[in-house]
Amino acid sequence: MDHLTEPKDRLLLGPGPSNVNARVINAMSMPIMGYLDPTFLKVMDELVAMLKVLFGTSNKFTLPLSGTGTSGMEAALVNILEPGDNVVVGVNGLFGQRIADIAERCGANVTTVSADWGHPLNLSDVEKAVKSTDKLALLAAVHVETSTGVIQPLKPLADIAHRQGALFLADCVTSLGGIEMKIDEWGVDICYSATQKCVGAPPGLSPITLSDKAVEKIKNRSTSIQSFYLDLLLLEKYWISDRTYHHTASMPIIYAVREALSMAIEEGMPNRVHRHQTNAEALKEGLKALGFEILAQDGYQAPPLTAPIIPDTVDEATIRKSLLSEYGIEIAGGFGPLAGKIWRIGLMGESSQETNVLTFLEALEELLAKTDHKFQVGSSITSAKQVFAKWDKLENLKTGFYNDGKIF
Amino acid sequence: MDHLTEPKDRLLLGPGPSNVNARVINAMSMPIMGYLDPTFLKVMDELVAMLKVLFGTSNKFTLPLSGTGTSGMEAALVNILEPGDNVVVGVNGLFGQRIADIAERCGANVTTVSADWGHPLNLSDVEKAVKSTDKLALLAAVHVETSTGVIQPLKPLADIAHRQGALFLADCVTSLGGIEMKIDEWGVDICYSATQKCVGAPPGLSPITLSDKAVEKIKNRSTSIQSFYLDLLLLEKYWISDRTYHHTASMPIIYAVREALSMAIEEGMPNRVHRHQTNAEALKEGLKALGFEILAQDGYQAPPLTAPIIPDTVDEATIRKSLLSEYGIEIAGGFGPLAGKIWRIGLMGESSQETNVLTFLEALEELLAKTDHKFQVGSSITSAKQVFAKWDKLENLKTGFYNDGKIF
Repeated sequence: MDHLTEPKDRLLLGPGPSNVNARVINAMSMPIMGYLDPTFLKVMDELVAMLKVLFGTSNKFTLPLSGTGTSGMEAALVNILEPGDNVVVGVNGLFGQRIADIAERCGANVTTVSADWGHPLNLSDVEKAVKSTDKLALLAAVHVETSTGVIQPLKPLADIAHRQGALFLADCVTSLGGIEMKIDEWGVDICYSATQKCVGAPPGLSPITLSDKAVEKIKNRSTSIQSFYLDLLLLEKYWISDRTYHHTASMPIIYAVREALSMAIEEGMPNRVHRHQTNAEALKEGLKALGFEILAQDGYQAPPLTAPIIPDTVDEATIRKSLLSEYGIEIAGGFGPLAGKIWRIGLMGESSQETNVLTFLEALEELLAKTDHKFQVGSSITSAKQVFAKWDKLENLKTGFYNDGKIF
Repeated sequence: MDHLTEPKDRLLLGPGPSNVNARVINAMSMPIMGYLDPTFLKVMDELVAMLKVLFGTSNKFTLPLSGTGTSGMEAALVNILEPGDNVVVGVNGLFGQRIADIAERCGANVTTVSADWGHPLNLSDVEKAVKSTDKLALLAAVHVETSTGVIQPLKPLADIAHRQGALFLADCVTSLGGIEMKIDEWGVDICYSATQKCVGAPPGLSPITLSDKAVEKIKNRSTSIQSFYLDLLLLEKYWISDRTYHHTASMPIIYAVREALSMAIEEGMPNRVHRHQTNAEALKEGLKALGFEILAQDGYQAPPLTAPIIPDTVDEATIRKSLLSEYGIEIAGGFGPLAGKIWRIGLMGESSQETNVLTFLEALEELLAKTDHKFQVGSSITSAKQVFAKWDKLENLKTGFYNDGKIF
């Protein structure tokens, strides 16, 4: 029908979805096959093999769920938790809150350990809560809080959980593909992500990986799992072991994610991490030159998402909306206590490009120039370019991916 | 990477996914936008408006879930049912069983009313079960059983449920888009579907619609809903009323489904129904000419899915696998008690074409000719062509869609 609304070209610098490379878009046009077609099963296997590389895991239980990142969170919790299980959840943003919410829906006894939005969790607070909880089943935390741009080191939390015999769950929705992940080395037992952020694909799948200990906990449940759609043991039978029908996976999204993963592996994870770091650093220096401070505590700023604090002289919503309507650039505002107080600027996957940083800063300067906010015209561009000049000369990291290169 | 497995072109005549028109495939290449982009919100509204037309409903609560058909089944049940609720489920195939399974996971008291696989539910059996259940909350049944090819008239069941003050749920995964749906007129309170069958899109969304009475039941729950991902009241706030963030919908699949729905509306539902009926009739006559009988009871054969019974002289699995490996044609075998005993041949959405019927029958004859199965060569083609000759001359149904044509 000719009166359908035409989607518009956008530079996607929000918290995801991010822009997608043409190779990944084109992959969605590959022929649709049946969900048990022997050729499609090979496609599935390749996707899983590459997911393991990005997660940094040899977990046998690794697969993508047919849902978005939130379905990964839900699958992890409804499978692992039984009513009455004791859980400690770190909450320093919206997604930590969501973990606590879903854990409560599962009937678990939830203790939250809070930190101010913009700060990481305090390890001694976490340790105190963990130690004072009898028979702790699970400690859960968010790797990169998409609501604040804070990165939480995972190994220390995993250690705290394991010392009490508990499992450790990490939400890696915004880190997978943009930050080097070493799930096995860190001791993360349950980890899920999404595809529309640093993985570089459209939304639609939620990669999830479980350690043997986590699978064991599910197998030893005394109560049944309410969800059939997200029943991980049934999904394992479709994706990995028996090839038993469970549901009809979405072929185009699977093709897209497989292509995006293969692009990540071609780029090499050290290069990819360096790219995300460089562009984030340039963005931050540009913002600082214009008088913005960064919400996330120094040393805990996650490259995929930068959250500048809005000065009193800047009208948050007006500038954000003008960026979209006049420049076609999407950034996001804050959630909850941070609504109106920050922007959330993502440089994830394909969106993390030098030109995007400069395009954004140019547009921002043009809009700020029309307001009373004082700044030196061109200063953000100069600052960003200084970062590129310095960081691009860093040791050439094109050493390939951090495995032996043999994936299949 | 050049060593990724190449998906193969298939003629998809199984129970779904079906083949997808190039217009729908191309729609997935439209620019990805943010999940709250004003232009994307318009796209969402158009999709919902067209879904209502296909469902034949004016239900305010109509939206697509970010999951496959099974997520629709799960969403319907986990939102409507509370622990201790009494439910009657009609079971005459795999998907009725699955409804009963998930209802039990929700803590409901489930009574099943069975019919032989291949037969519709017996109305007096259903009425007896409904009447003997105190405080019945829900009666549930499957419109088209994808495991058998049986179509169940829905209005009589809705009437039975309503006479006892219960809600009526219908699984319309295999009927939406291929069979005329009149949800409101029939009195279906909860109805969900999928996109990869008669709707003509890839898998990935599950359209769902709820009557006001069904929404009321959810609002009056005394227990919370375990699922956050499939919490329908929260999803309503994203898709329809408040535009509050809930999860990141998959833009490419939404574009694809919107395009498929607009193609259905352009074709006109009477034409589309006639096309599905004609091609199914031709397929059945062709199969009968080759000595196959149809599993589904006469008068209850669903056009989207035809299940021939395999004669003793035919090796079910060998022929089915040869169709795929030698001709690139996918059909499916039977589930559970019907494994090895039937094929399931789908003519759904874009796959429902005269040429596909003839291509399939040609290939089947060629394969059967190499076995001991006796049949007259060319007879299936002749029989199918007779149907086309007769049915194509039927009253010209190009009267457009059965609404006033104004959708937006």
